[in-house]
Amino acid sequence: MQKRDLIHPEPITIGSDEAESHENWGFRDTSFTINDAENVAITGSRYELSGKELPRLLPWIRETLAIDLDAKDRFEPNYPPEVPPSIENAKFIAEITKFLYTSQIEKDVDSRIRHGHGHTQEEMFGIKYGKVGRVPDIVVLPETEEQVASLITVAKDNEVILIPFGGGTNVTDALRCRDNESRMIVSVDMRRMNRILWIDKENMMACIEAGAVGRHIMSQLEKHGVTMGHEPDSVEFSTLGGWVATNASGMKKNKYGNIEEIVVDMTVATADGTLKRLNQAPRESVGSDIRRLMFGSEGTLGIVTSAVVKLFTLPESQEYGSVLFPNYEAGYAFMHELVMTSTPPASCRLVDNLQFQFGLALKPASHSAAADLKSKAQKFFVTKVKGFDPYKMVALTLVFEGNRSEVDRQQRDVYRIAKKHGGMKAGGENGRRGYQLTYSIAYIRDFLMNYYIIAESFETSCAWSDALAICENVKSVLYAEYEKRGLPGKPFITSRITQLYRTGVAIYFYFGFYFKGVDDPSHLYLELENIAREEILRSGGSLSHHHGVGKIREQYLPEIMSETALKWKREIKNSLDPQNVFGADNQGLGK
Amino acid sequence: MQKRDLIHPEPITIGSDEAESHENWGFRDTSFTINDAENVAITGSRYELSGKELPRLLPWIRETLAIDLDAKDRFEPNYPPEVPPSIENAKFIAEITKFLYTSQIEKDVDSRIRHGHGHTQEEMFGIKYGKVGRVPDIVVLPETEEQVASLITVAKDNEVILIPFGGGTNVTDALRCRDNESRMIVSVDMRRMNRILWIDKENMMACIEAGAVGRHIMSQLEKHGVTMGHEPDSVEFSTLGGWVATNASGMKKNKYGNIEEIVVDMTVATADGTLKRLNQAPRESVGSDIRRLMFGSEGTLGIVTSAVVKLFTLPESQEYGSVLFPNYEAGYAFMHELVMTSTPPASCRLVDNLQFQFGLALKPASHSAAADLKSKAQKFFVTKVKGFDPYKMVALTLVFEGNRSEVDRQQRDVYRIAKKHGGMKAGGENGRRGYQLTYSIAYIRDFLMNYYIIAESFETSCAWSDALAICENVKSVLYAEYEKRGLPGKPFITSRITQLYRTGVAIYFYFGFYFKGVDDPSHLYLELENIAREEILRSGGSLSHHHGVGKIREQYLPEIMSETALKWKREIKNSLDPQNVFGADNQGLGK
Repeated sequence: MQKRDLIHPEPITIGSDEAESHENWGFRDTSFTINDAENVAITGSRYELSGKELPRLLPWIRETLAIDLDAKDRFEPNYPPEVPPSIENAKFIAEITKFLYTSQIEKDVDSRIRHGHGHTQEEMFGIKYGKVGRVPDIVVLPETEEQVASLITVAKDNEVILIPFGGGTNVTDALRCRDNESRMIVSVDMRRMNRILWIDKENMMACIEAGAVGRHIMSQLEKHGVTMGHEPDSVEFSTLGGWVATNASGMKKNKYGNIEEIVVDMTVATADGTLKRLNQAPRESVGSDIRRLMFGSEGTLGIVTSAVVKLFTLPESQEYGSVLFPNYEAGYAFMHELVMTSTPPASCRLVDNLQFQFGLALKPASHSAAADLKSKAQKFFVTKVKGFDPYKMVALTLVFEGNRSEVDRQQRDVYRIAKKHGGMKAGGENGRRGYQLTYSIAYIRDFLMNYYIIAESFETSCAWSDALAICENVKSVLYAEYEKRGLPGKPFITSRITQLYRTGVAIYFYFGFYFKGVDDPSHLYLELENIAREEILRSGGSLSHHHGVGKIREQYLPEIMSETALKWKREIKNSLDPQNVFGADNQGLGK
Repeated sequence: MQKRDLIHPEPITIGSDEAESHENWGFRDTSFTINDAENVAITGSRYELSGKELPRLLPWIRETLAIDLDAKDRFEPNYPPEVPPSIENAKFIAEITKFLYTSQIEKDVDSRIRHGHGHTQEEMFGIKYGKVGRVPDIVVLPETEEQVASLITVAKDNEVILIPFGGGTNVTDALRCRDNESRMIVSVDMRRMNRILWIDKENMMACIEAGAVGRHIMSQLEKHGVTMGHEPDSVEFSTLGGWVATNASGMKKNKYGNIEEIVVDMTVATADGTLKRLNQAPRESVGSDIRRLMFGSEGTLGIVTSAVVKLFTLPESQEYGSVLFPNYEAGYAFMHELVMTSTPPASCRLVDNLQFQFGLALKPASHSAAADLKSKAQKFFVTKVKGFDPYKMVALTLVFEGNRSEVDRQQRDVYRIAKKHGGMKAGGENGRRGYQLTYSIAYIRDFLMNYYIIAESFETSCAWSDALAICENVKSVLYAEYEKRGLPGKPFITSRITQLYRTGVAIYFYFGFYFKGVDDPSHLYLELENIAREEILRSGGSLSHHHGVGKIREQYLPEIMSETALKWKREIKNSLDPQNVFGADNQGLGK
């Protein structure tokens, strides 16, 4: 192979301003609070909304949930919870201290708790208000491929289980430890293996260690004028290895592809040596590609230590856009025609009316009369002149990326087709706001929990012809259940079509409710989420588009695949990891 | 799931004019011959060249191979060869006659021979000039999923092995039977399972039985205004199931994707029941996708009985194009810039100078003085005016497909970038001719064998930066070996860049030589091909881009993947098919 002209970027240094919360989603410097004026405000200065007041939010929540939310009445968390004493396998500890520094081994409760959960509502509710079961007994932080390999060997020799840890942002209980696991549980935190090993601009590939976090990968690659284009909503915290293990989807997949399309090759530490290939070929026919088993493996088959990913030059143009449609059906019809007749822009999302209202409720206090006037004028035009019903209209947000002519053509097609379906251009600024919100809004769930509101997202994918029915059916079944159970106020249920494919779409739901006076709200939530999931499966939806299965959805696997398919999964797991050293026990692939 | 608006096309009826040769490639009505004028002519009326004379071909071959090819001196084939008597497992036969009609069981030698080979030079030389080893003992032709399942059960109960058969066009010895196989070998010919079960135009999917042949799939879908866009060079004969089993690539993959991107879902008859899914989701994260193991499985894991594929509306515009470049390097530089800065057209192929000359040698006798004049004038312009060296210049052929604006934009980009690299537009007609040749030229190999010329193609994929070196190194190593061994005349070695990817390309080689007076030319060919393959691997190429591994390349697997990867392959095979009922024994996945 001819010598390549490779760039070797500097190792990533993690700034002191990047500390993450253990108790809540995200960075320590950011959280939603209620200020003295009883308005919601966001701390810090990291996001566009940071340091701002959101005067409309509480009133809107009270109205939407039909509750009297009292800003003074906090549901106080009591983090950290008690955890069972750790099981220590002395021989294992002795062995690993031979090749790991003490700084690579963490035994403190705080770290153990953090490595035992992701961000499902149950997990977050559990660490703050409930009790937590088994958590990892220790956390190790390998820094090289060799250390990962040694960890596996020693774990096998001493009947210890390893659970790989990336960003800890999963929403599938994939990191939750089974209480009945009697072996020592070791969390393998990969985040010190975070280097970009090389960038090859002639062949548009980069080799990146699996513990690298999305925001660092992006910033590092940007310095060299390239991107891998993968931007899941968790991109600030999730890792390359985690993306593979969960089969992640990025919001710009229309242009860059999902993770399985971006990864060209990977190196995997398995229970029996290392999966490795000689060359990175753009495409091959050399037998079943066993590396692909790692996509969606959720820690059950091995640990991805590095991957070679595709690169794209940074787009010449990036533009946002938005369109208002009189109703969800019109927006859906637009999307279908767009996909069938053109190339959709990098991202194209349709939010239903409730989510559209939610977006307005998150608008910061304006200190400019002109701005107020402008938005009033807009509202007047949309509702009075165009005659859109404010309780039916929906919004489409767009990101266009590419070279100038590509973006121009996409914009022409999008706005031409939108017009056909009664759409009304609503400008780039509203589009940009929509995408900015993605990151700050992730903090709101933990904030609301402190005021007796529990909320969570769940998602699916389906054929085009099932999409509207699924949105409709999920909403009606949840409203009905909620009423049947006589729960407080009204639930919050909203849907968004987030990804477009030739053969269908991905749908994202938010569901939340007020739980003051309700027993075990977290468990109740799960019950209701499961009712929604069963409705989704009945209506033709998948078990998950990108969140994954983990432990939270494993009971539904027999409904979506044949008995033989499940047998194949078990046979493969057992043959590749007979000792179950990768004992994360997701998808029912434990002992 | 909501009721879908499905089209159910008529079953395919195979015309009497579709008879295939057992002795040579392709349809019975087509073959190359030498006529009384000692010119090469093509029989039949199927292809553009059919019924035409190719006066330039023999002279060009004589000159290029530096031989005195005597049109009267034929190397007479003696097909059919003798085959060992068949092993009959009486109990198995008795069992299958309970659910198969006698018309679904073939025991004649001709059929047994045909089902025991693909189209490698060794196999074709073997059936015509050599002796043939073990071939299938019987051939069965199931017509339903249930019959396939029953065959597997009965085969397991009676220790019989099953080898799935699609179009029989592989070039990997994948169908070749091992002489040491003592069990009864049953070839499962899938071609009666050839229906398009449904077409769903709202969701752009079709469900097609695995035995459907490419040409029938295309014509059937066309009637409904759609296509799956998969056009491997074997599309006339190869089947959907075969495409999955070999991980096939279509020449228009830039627009439609390769087979693994086109297949949305599949049903697989395994040694332990049926792999099946509840819904077809456009994309999911529900654990490792075990269906993907079938891509490239080459008959070792199960039998694909049907697949759901993506559909595309027939392109509004289809246009051909061609460009001449002063040399291969310029053409390569053009391709690299095209991929990095634009969206390449559906197909884009670069042939080297020798292959360009070969194309000219295949021009039929012109009965129009005007045409002769025109081509003379063109030649004059290219060589004298533009100063292209006729022994260095190369040709690029293009297929543009899409809506009008898409095709216009691609043409603008292609010709603008080509010009930058010294390219000269050579018109749509030359492009069209290039693609037309693909199908008729496939017949020439068997023809030349009758005149002591053995030839074969092999291919690879590699990173952009290795492409030119691989083409160069393969040619020089073969020339050197050929000379070293003092073989007759000069060998024919040519390369073509056939597929473009962001991270690299696919390269297709033709290699042939004159073997009169040479011992065991077929074996010699294989020796030389292996020397070329080793050079490819050394130079950074893959073991195969789309042909596959089969038996012909299995010895190289340890060179391209780690020991652990090979162990994984064996473990998976053994756990899913412990009895090795799918005993095709490719990729070393036998007992």
